Amino acid sequence: MKDMLKEYGDYTLSGIRQFIPAKEPKAYLYDLMVDYPSRGGKGFRPALCITTCNAFGGKTEQAKFSAIALELLHNAFLIHDDVEDESFNRRNKPSMHQLTNKAIAVNVGDAMNVLALYPLFKNKMVLGDKLTQTIFLEMQHLVTESTEGQALELGWRRDNCINLREADYFRMILKKTCWYTCIHPIRIGALIGTKGYINPAKFDRLGYFMGAAFQIQDDVLNLVANEKEYGKEIGGDIMEGKRTLMLIHLMGKCNSQERSFIRDFLAIPILDRSQDDAAHIFGLMEKYQSVKHAQKTSQYLAGAALKEFYTHFSALPDTLEKAFLEQMILYMIDRNY
Amino acid sequence: MKDMLKEYGDYTLSGIRQFIPAKEPKAYLYDLMVDYPSRGGKGFRPALCITTCNAFGGKTEQAKFSAIALELLHNAFLIHDDVEDESFNRRNKPSMHQLTNKAIAVNVGDAMNVLALYPLFKNKMVLGDKLTQTIFLEMQHLVTESTEGQALELGWRRDNCINLREADYFRMILKKTCWYTCIHPIRIGALIGTKGYINPAKFDRLGYFMGAAFQIQDDVLNLVANEKEYGKEIGGDIMEGKRTLMLIHLMGKCNSQERSFIRDFLAIPILDRSQDDAAHIFGLMEKYQSVKHAQKTSQYLAGAALKEFYTHFSALPDTLEKAFLEQMILYMIDRNY
Repeated sequence: MKDMLKEYGDYTLSGIRQFIPAKEPKAYLYDLMVDYPSRGGKGFRPALCITTCNAFGGKTEQAKFSAIALELLHNAFLIHDDVEDESFNRRNKPSMHQLTNKAIAVNVGDAMNVLALYPLFKNKMVLGDKLTQTIFLEMQHLVTESTEGQALELGWRRDNCINLREADYFRMILKKTCWYTCIHPIRIGALIGTKGYINPAKFDRLGYFMGAAFQIQDDVLNLVANEKEYGKEIGGDIMEGKRTLMLIHLMGKCNSQERSFIRDFLAIPILDRSQDDAAHIFGLMEKYQSVKHAQKTSQYLAGAALKEFYTHFSALPDTLEKAFLEQMILYMIDRNY
Repeated sequence: MKDMLKEYGDYTLSGIRQFIPAKEPKAYLYDLMVDYPSRGGKGFRPALCITTCNAFGGKTEQAKFSAIALELLHNAFLIHDDVEDESFNRRNKPSMHQLTNKAIAVNVGDAMNVLALYPLFKNKMVLGDKLTQTIFLEMQHLVTESTEGQALELGWRRDNCINLREADYFRMILKKTCWYTCIHPIRIGALIGTKGYINPAKFDRLGYFMGAAFQIQDDVLNLVANEKEYGKEIGGDIMEGKRTLMLIHLMGKCNSQERSFIRDFLAIPILDRSQDDAAHIFGLMEKYQSVKHAQKTSQYLAGAALKEFYTHFSALPDTLEKAFLEQMILYMIDRNY
């Protein structure tokens, strides 16, 4: 499965390179655009889109432009996300604004967002007008949902919200992560594979369960992964004050003194927070088994995703791509980076 | 003319309000989206688009969705521009990131960029598929050029480039300002007014001359305007190290000692620069008549724009809108805010 993932990733990356124009401004824009995609991301989104397309009888080339657009939007999102979170590293290298500065990083993200429209127009050549437009609307919804989810997360942090419930967290990651990481890649793949003859909404639950399992595992890895494999600073989420399932669980379980400690930690600016305090909060998460709770939740979600997968894919021929999709669901929670 | 400008501005603003969804997240996203547009911007871009459409025989309603998209993209651009430049004020109020924080401001800009796609899809209802798509491609080019221009400006600042020539400046503002402020609004208006039966490239020179005159006057006003009318901090461009025509002119004229002073000033971080040093640089601009040089250049450009305008518009019927466009060209350089 990992070989196939890498193959789709390389396929998409070479497509991205073709869309980045070979012209000025290079040092301040176009050379920077290829940086994040070249760092060897996992390539989940293109792989989900292409293999779903294949599982429904479509060809890889038919999903190519959509996969490229998904990956461009994803990397644009990461660049802005890193600015917003003041993250230091991304995929084992300095984040874009650390390499350049925040101003240039914001602009590179903007330019990548608009660059993603170019492959979407190319879809006309392989998919015709109607499906091209349907996919366009899928992408528009994808970006809209992501910005809404991001708004919730950033707003909670700014207002130092500490009374969040798990339901709030799930609503936030549905918007911030699930639509763009799983729901839309699968929907778009199925639309292409069936030439538009499918109601894509039937994959929404699958994508939601899968995306939520993915995000929770991502947050868990941020605490417990091997830093080199994970590619970002371990514990960075605690330092950033990110409202993860673990933090919400902890706030609901801990005593009032511990609660005050966490609230005070979250009230000071990101760059002024101490590593020792963050380590103490991680200790509390261990004490109240918040990490374990999150891991369990992620496993339940992956189970629910598998059930959805069997519902919608079991009637399809047994292809390599179908098997890949099943493995991807398990990989969401088994991966260690 | 100002009444008409206000009328088009209000017309576009009420359209924008209709496109901002009445749903959550409000405080962290959708309420913020209406903030900049409601501050009473000049509304140049919608007015140029609508009146050009009218001058070529089209109806205002036909240009409505394009005008809304132009204004949404413009305001998204301003929000990110203010983050990038670390500007304190916009239209007499705190800039978006001052009101919220940089993270939220970046995200609001992203969400407004994608929101601009919605009215562009609505174009289908009034303009048909083909023209809708043509306008889509115009907008895509508009954003691409703006990010390229922005990349040049931000890159020059980061690398503290001090050997720029006027030709570099003109190339930068063509990309950063002219396409999105004048060239595309006029092109799109003419395309709509003629139902697509015109080669829009013939307006490129008009839009370029007009946009360059506009940008230079904007930079001049940043130095000499009445702060309350202008709505931003006076002299902010010097503090930000913006490569204006005045700064480039000054660097070409001043002696080596003054040159070193300016270079050192530009080498320190924006927020560490002193107001006194900025005032000294403004004094040097006066000494070497750099402001006067810029004002003259702006006037020449407006003259060239007028010539282009007569070439392409004199055969059209004498309408109120045609007269408005002519006045707009003069207003570019006569305006004092």
